[in-house]
Amino acid sequence: MDDDALLAEQMAYYRDGAAEYDRPYAEREDLRELLAVVDDLPIAGDVLELACGTGQWTPLLATRARSVTAVDASAEVLAIARVRATSAKVRFVRADLFEWRPQRRYDTVFFAFWLSHVPPTRLPDFWQTVAAALGPGGRAVFVDDGPAGARGEEVLADHPVPAAVRRLDDGSRYRIVKVFHDPRTLTDDLTALGWSARIRPVAGNFVGVAEPPTFAG
Amino acid sequence: MDDDALLAEQMAYYRDGAAEYDRPYAEREDLRELLAVVDDLPIAGDVLELACGTGQWTPLLATRARSVTAVDASAEVLAIARVRATSAKVRFVRADLFEWRPQRRYDTVFFAFWLSHVPPTRLPDFWQTVAAALGPGGRAVFVDDGPAGARGEEVLADHPVPAAVRRLDDGSRYRIVKVFHDPRTLTDDLTALGWSARIRPVAGNFVGVAEPPTFAG
Repeated sequence: MDDDALLAEQMAYYRDGAAEYDRPYAEREDLRELLAVVDDLPIAGDVLELACGTGQWTPLLATRARSVTAVDASAEVLAIARVRATSAKVRFVRADLFEWRPQRRYDTVFFAFWLSHVPPTRLPDFWQTVAAALGPGGRAVFVDDGPAGARGEEVLADHPVPAAVRRLDDGSRYRIVKVFHDPRTLTDDLTALGWSARIRPVAGNFVGVAEPPTFAG
Repeated sequence: MDDDALLAEQMAYYRDGAAEYDRPYAEREDLRELLAVVDDLPIAGDVLELACGTGQWTPLLATRARSVTAVDASAEVLAIARVRATSAKVRFVRADLFEWRPQRRYDTVFFAFWLSHVPPTRLPDFWQTVAAALGPGGRAVFVDDGPAGARGEEVLADHPVPAAVRRLDDGSRYRIVKVFHDPRTLTDDLTALGWSARIRPVAGNFVGVAEPPTFAG
């Protein structure tokens, strides 16, 4: 597929940049504000966290959950997440999220700053995977950059897939998928796919809660 | 110098293998036993930790210290250590220990499983650097593999510098310096350099406490 090379480069960025991953969380006031929002979100029961990264969100989920299954493609960020999320409730899985499919259903599927890294052509499949991972009454809960996030990024103009350039401290350069979803457009897109979604802006980012299309549970 | 390439490879091993660094601490009973020994060691005042790795020892030092300055060459392991050692007492420094020289004096210089990675030809310089980092009454405290540690290693026979091979999960292969010091020989060597050392075996490893040659403080 056309975006395979870009997704491989995105994965390399998070593998090679694991040591720099936490920096925005230390430096950006909006992220600290966003992390505090978890307490107000409907995190419950068995939680699946997609693209957990270095586990900035994982311990917060664990305090609200019966269990957390946290998935990421990079052993490097998972090593940091394991230290950060020490609760016995948390289990880590290393897997490429574009290949991996959950083996069970969950009460909550959570993803922070992951939706923006999914190529638009893959979004219908992505949401279908999330729906398939949810048991009856289950909900998707997600946070991500809103359109304002583009200001801090080196966006690649005229790229076939919305993308940005990220650089590591050693000067190395990576292209990543980066879609700055507008909360209203995203709500409409989800509605068109049969979801029921409420998405609100928080500190320049957005927070969404969505129920999948009703299925014969 | 002859061992520069080997030291570069050793540094690459710890950089590339950061995600696998903690595994022996999870798996090896002797290491858990060894970590518990910290409570009995003369850790005091301002502590300099050399080669802190992923910070397995750093939080234990912090509970006993006024401050901890923890140095390692790898940003990758430091990222994990930063998550593990969250005390405001701890400051991390990224530096190549074969180049770096302390800018002040400390009450304790601590190093766990670092001495065995120092090439024998560099040991006199190493101990001199440690002595120079210690203020009046200061002590070096160290733990490392004893001769029994060689059993679990792929030792490189007839290598100009005592070395072993380490492999990462992806099959990549690195040579590292690895000297399995005998506690008695090490005590004699330190005595010859003017140190006063007490080194005792613990769980197949050894724990040492040493005072440097008296200097005009």
